[in-house]
Amino acid sequence: MNEEKVILYSYWRSSCSWRVRIALEYKRIKYEYAPIHLLKDGGQQKSEEYSKVNPMKSVPSLIINGHVIGQSLAILEYLEEVYTINPLMPKDPLKRAISRQMMQIIGSDIQPLQNLKVLGAVAQLSGDDSKKAEWARQWIANGFNGLEKLLEIHSGKYCVGDEISFADLCIPAQVYNAHRFNLDMTPYPNIARINETLSSIPEFKSAEPLNQPDAEKPTC
Amino acid sequence: MNEEKVILYSYWRSSCSWRVRIALEYKRIKYEYAPIHLLKDGGQQKSEEYSKVNPMKSVPSLIINGHVIGQSLAILEYLEEVYTINPLMPKDPLKRAISRQMMQIIGSDIQPLQNLKVLGAVAQLSGDDSKKAEWARQWIANGFNGLEKLLEIHSGKYCVGDEISFADLCIPAQVYNAHRFNLDMTPYPNIARINETLSSIPEFKSAEPLNQPDAEKPTC
Repeated sequence: MNEEKVILYSYWRSSCSWRVRIALEYKRIKYEYAPIHLLKDGGQQKSEEYSKVNPMKSVPSLIINGHVIGQSLAILEYLEEVYTINPLMPKDPLKRAISRQMMQIIGSDIQPLQNLKVLGAVAQLSGDDSKKAEWARQWIANGFNGLEKLLEIHSGKYCVGDEISFADLCIPAQVYNAHRFNLDMTPYPNIARINETLSSIPEFKSAEPLNQPDAEKPTC
Repeated sequence: MNEEKVILYSYWRSSCSWRVRIALEYKRIKYEYAPIHLLKDGGQQKSEEYSKVNPMKSVPSLIINGHVIGQSLAILEYLEEVYTINPLMPKDPLKRAISRQMMQIIGSDIQPLQNLKVLGAVAQLSGDDSKKAEWARQWIANGFNGLEKLLEIHSGKYCVGDEISFADLCIPAQVYNAHRFNLDMTPYPNIARINETLSSIPEFKSAEPLNQPDAEKPTC
């Protein structure tokens, strides 16, 4: 697959882009980084040109030989199916299910409720910009409460036993956001521990926001 | 797999339960229906007993021989991996990716933003109960705008060509909710057409809310 041309539309601080960057690093897939600035120019993801790439007007989008795939979790599944080296999922169907359950808690029950677009709508609805962080904390805590309990049962070194799996790919960005919104992590020792473990893995490090070509000095 | 004991914790009108019921019907898996009433008793999903089954306190949960899997999309993937009869996904990795992209648009970008819990928070935030439907319509429209464009490119009889796939399993409940919140479906001819086609398939019919043992006469 090495001759394929792979492009990732990404934003350095986007949680969903981050997950995919880890998978690409992990599977040693060379890719071109195409930055989409979510704030500049009223949001470059809303441009007519990018809307044709991804009609949801969101990042990431992965282009492989001219084929476009959107939605980070769909991209992860595709990469795992097609690039078989360095597996990102265990073989046992039940472990795979638990990893996807954890991944979906982050990907459905947490991240979508505290992304840029939704927080904008929250500020508009409440007429109070300061409600954004409170709203974000509420949903991150709600999801982390459930995730932490699953980790108590299923985690080892990583989210599901001692093998890296999809769930782990979703941890760093969500913990980063938790810190960004000043969530107290004390009730989540397993999430914090696994995040710490993951942060020392070179492929996870390379995928971090500050190591991206479009990284900026964080302002919040 | 026929001797396995399968239990589905479900609520008749839950979108996420509905998706899983279609898969179970489609794969001819006999299961025990365990109703969890999301409104009665302050929400039976919040009970101590059910929280042990599913720490996210949400439906569905699937029990197979004592193993628990939560999050509907994780359950779909598990069923497809383990029960190989009547496949719910095409073989081609790119088509699978597009189906999952569509599924995740509904599963991450729409449904989580307009479920019972979030609409409660919206009412609380705005201090105005009538904001709930407006909020729900906004996010369903946002997701349907993207989904409709993908369907223009990829759909055939169903969401991705002429084979049933995961994306189709997510359509009926989301269109049902769109109607419930009075969303004008005129801009979404492909979504409406596919929903109509799916509604005549026996397995889809059996999974409908009103055909569940805990169905009630809808009040809204």
